[in-house]
Amino acid sequence: MEILITNDDGWGSKGILLLTRLLLPLGHVTVVAPDGARSGMSNAISAVDDITFKKIPTPPDLQGADIYITSGTPSDCIKLAVNVLFGEDSSRIDLVVSGINHGSNAAINIIYSGTMGACFVAAEQGIPAIGFSIYDMDANPDFSYMESYIVPLVKELYVKGMPRTVCYNVNAPKGPIRDIRYTRQCVSHWEKEMRPIRLDNGETAYRMTGYLVNDEPEAQDTDEWALAHGYLSVQPCSVDMTYYGTIG
Amino acid sequence: MEILITNDDGWGSKGILLLTRLLLPLGHVTVVAPDGARSGMSNAISAVDDITFKKIPTPPDLQGADIYITSGTPSDCIKLAVNVLFGEDSSRIDLVVSGINHGSNAAINIIYSGTMGACFVAAEQGIPAIGFSIYDMDANPDFSYMESYIVPLVKELYVKGMPRTVCYNVNAPKGPIRDIRYTRQCVSHWEKEMRPIRLDNGETAYRMTGYLVNDEPEAQDTDEWALAHGYLSVQPCSVDMTYYGTIG
Repeated sequence: MEILITNDDGWGSKGILLLTRLLLPLGHVTVVAPDGARSGMSNAISAVDDITFKKIPTPPDLQGADIYITSGTPSDCIKLAVNVLFGEDSSRIDLVVSGINHGSNAAINIIYSGTMGACFVAAEQGIPAIGFSIYDMDANPDFSYMESYIVPLVKELYVKGMPRTVCYNVNAPKGPIRDIRYTRQCVSHWEKEMRPIRLDNGETAYRMTGYLVNDEPEAQDTDEWALAHGYLSVQPCSVDMTYYGTIG
Repeated sequence: MEILITNDDGWGSKGILLLTRLLLPLGHVTVVAPDGARSGMSNAISAVDDITFKKIPTPPDLQGADIYITSGTPSDCIKLAVNVLFGEDSSRIDLVVSGINHGSNAAINIIYSGTMGACFVAAEQGIPAIGFSIYDMDANPDFSYMESYIVPLVKELYVKGMPRTVCYNVNAPKGPIRDIRYTRQCVSHWEKEMRPIRLDNGETAYRMTGYLVNDEPEAQDTDEWALAHGYLSVQPCSVDMTYYGTIG
């Protein structure tokens, strides 16, 4: 298998190092990752800035992987791999795996997620993609409970196949995992997101903060419910954002 | 009506000036817009940088509108309006209108769009939202053909109502408009997106470029088909990215 790995926390973060180590036995691994943290970048692309891109030495414990870092966003990483590294051979990429993100990408967080943004670019290109995240904001998250689920789940989802435009958003709870649950995106919203801070010049600026509110706490088929009850949430998602329901 | 306007081309761009002028007769207008261009920002938020935010004088021809500019992204603009300007009264916002974007947000472009990113934040907050874009990359787009459609369409879509999580992606063709068509997002992908450029230090960097490929050119119900045939495309879209179809 030809596997392409990226993330939004940047190369060297704990999540992508673990992911690379776990997936190396499955085939040939190429990593294209940002050179630092790109949190909350969603599907942003470097529309204006030039994007730098270089190969770096592979650490001894990840021998076999080809590793590139870039000044770009997670979405740029997939575009660089598809257009520059693989070029006419981009159909050789069997699978994109993104993460493991430090923090949840469940519920409405999916639309802000650089981790999932990279998967959406893959889905656009017709490449199967899976994003992994953990519901833990610690700088040093404990991936030990989710670790054993990753390779079997990657194999299962890949073999099952993904329709064009579809990819997967996988979120793990912080602690022990009871089981895997296929979920849908929870209706939810953020509150109290802007914290005023006083600048040195006396003016007020704002810093992102806040908390997520589950707007359907009784529903048991959502990703939020799964995470709150110790399940690993597997959400199939699509870059087709059309609403096919009835209006009015 | 209490109307909130934003865009991703920044305050002062031709599209948002026209939009503000057109919507002023419908009620009270608040503009919260980036202080410069934020193209391809998708749903990116300023997760790290402090966000500055200030009221600026209203131009004589837009009297009645309250206008704020910010260092943030289009998504930040909605979050600033909801959390800082309106605060506990954010339910007073009847409608968010974003644009008019200089460039198409049809097909897969929707996932990269800051214009639509702002609408998605509104939809998250349960506020009806409509994004307007024109399929014209000229720095000085000709909005004259679409202009007369905007106010009637805003009224029609607002009265019809939008289910929670739903908003609208409206794209106009460049020239004369035959009629309005309700559409779905075209399956499509970008090709040849990375143009190598030689830096002064001899290294190679990359600049975004490329073209969109319609992967279902025969389908007549897509936004791409509508635009290619002179129709104004109205796509209902949802921030629920779950794929509800069958897999495997």
